[in-house]
Amino acid sequence: MIEVLRLDHRIHRDPRISTHLALVSRAFGCSKIYYSGDKDSGMEETVNKVTDEFGGPFEIEHVKDEFKFIREKKNFKIVHLTVYGLSVQNEISKIKKFDNILIIVGGSKVPGEIYQLSDFNISVTNQPHSEVSSLSIFLDKYFDSQELEKKFKNAKSIIIPQEKGKLVKKC
Amino acid sequence: MIEVLRLDHRIHRDPRISTHLALVSRAFGCSKIYYSGDKDSGMEETVNKVTDEFGGPFEIEHVKDEFKFIREKKNFKIVHLTVYGLSVQNEISKIKKFDNILIIVGGSKVPGEIYQLSDFNISVTNQPHSEVSSLSIFLDKYFDSQELEKKFKNAKSIIIPQEKGKLVKKC
Repeated sequence: MIEVLRLDHRIHRDPRISTHLALVSRAFGCSKIYYSGDKDSGMEETVNKVTDEFGGPFEIEHVKDEFKFIREKKNFKIVHLTVYGLSVQNEISKIKKFDNILIIVGGSKVPGEIYQLSDFNISVTNQPHSEVSSLSIFLDKYFDSQELEKKFKNAKSIIIPQEKGKLVKKC
Repeated sequence: MIEVLRLDHRIHRDPRISTHLALVSRAFGCSKIYYSGDKDSGMEETVNKVTDEFGGPFEIEHVKDEFKFIREKKNFKIVHLTVYGLSVQNEISKIKKFDNILIIVGGSKVPGEIYQLSDFNISVTNQPHSEVSSLSIFLDKYFDSQELEKKFKNAKSIIIPQEKGKLVKKC
């Protein structure tokens, strides 16, 4: 079971970044995203609408105390994605040995305690870019790109790949 | 030469998504990002500051007429990333044969003409997620993950991978 925790969501600054993190989590094979910071019903609704239309299972849930939450994830290996961490290409084989993983994706300022609580601090390049790209590359490496073929359950709509144009099949 | 064109940037709605697209372009081995829509000096400054601090070469430039711009890129293959396109994992070997590529990343509504002007319409999963993740996965496949090891020129700061904590070397 692969889950994601997005730290420190700020409703006025981050709505689209956090939504993208949630949609990447769903599309790339995670079962759930948690987020701390501001509770954001609008974002939850946006994500749940995508799951309703394109299939699941996938859940989104707000958590109040991220430290308590992390400490209680005793059966999960904690992987914190950070530009300061060890390189994903060198560490991924160690992480693949574990089936239950909580991936932590930072907000604006990540407290030092997160680095200590994590079993792995992992970077996707040591260049500044985007938590959205770090999450997607990490998941693609973890799943060996098999997530690109993932089928979803109870979809109302399925997009059919086209050379030009758009084709959506209604189920 | 791999370049990116971000369509239809909206200064009040997209600042962080477009900035993330620019930073992913830089970090993952592209030489330049162009963007259409609103001209945004603040975003350009943010991106140029990263290049100045962490190295280059990398450029960002606004274009007024994206259709004219695309038509004039005669020596480039045009790859449009869209949820409706053919699967990246099936098409990437064909695209790798070309050295000069312009990757188009959509805005809110992509005109049908873009699908027609493009040599390849490519999807990263046929699920809704994020243009930032689509761009990063596409580039990672195109460069066979070699971009994760890329060195930048004239960097003032280099981040050194750490198991716990942060280490930035000043050059």
